[in-house]
Amino acid sequence: HLRVTLSDDFYVGPGRADLIELIAETGSISEAAKRMGMSYKRAWGLVQALNEGFGAPLVETQRGGAGQGGAVVTDAGHEVLKRYRHMQERTRAAIEADVKALGKLHADMSRRK
Amino acid sequence: HLRVTLSDDFYVGPGRADLIELIAETGSISEAAKRMGMSYKRAWGLVQALNEGFGAPLVETQRGGAGQGGAVVTDAGHEVLKRYRHMQERTRAAIEADVKALGKLHADMSRRK
Repeated sequence: HLRVTLSDDFYVGPGRADLIELIAETGSISEAAKRMGMSYKRAWGLVQALNEGFGAPLVETQRGGAGQGGAVVTDAGHEVLKRYRHMQERTRAAIEADVKALGKLHADMSRRK
Repeated sequence: HLRVTLSDDFYVGPGRADLIELIAETGSISEAAKRMGMSYKRAWGLVQALNEGFGAPLVETQRGGAGQGGAVVTDAGHEVLKRYRHMQERTRAAIEADVKALGKLHADMSRRK
């Protein structure tokens, strides 16, 4: 679980990245929300937070917010998503040995209980 | 911001790691809580969640919970903290270039607004 904070107003974490990815896939905030098991209202709020926090649209809606119309991920949005996925991969590789060691300690200690 | 989840019941994130570190430093949950600007109750709850989630004590209290007595970080607690700090360092190094690139994109886009 990696959260990357770029400023007081902007961060990307796994939920936000998944949302951008699903909007890119489905072209729809409401469909993306449905697949994530969240309300449209919550997804819309996250899109607003992403756009305003970043200072430029990462997701553009085609018929305004109320219409639940189509949505597209902008070039900046794709760039943020791509970078985030790359950071996730690199982090996973970088911490793999420590995660394994902690998992082993966890298992050993739990068993001993 | 890195959260490492080992099981359904256990994760370590920056707040939990700081709490363990401050308990090790001060020998006191209440003092650690104070330095983190959180209530004793919240810190105590986190210690419980850490201990129960891990399946073995990471922090041991010397005079029970209510007494707000001394607290020590166990060997397992020190190991968890050390591994977490190491993962933070490695993550920071692994994602540095992407964070810089995203920061630059963020700054460029904000300026354009």
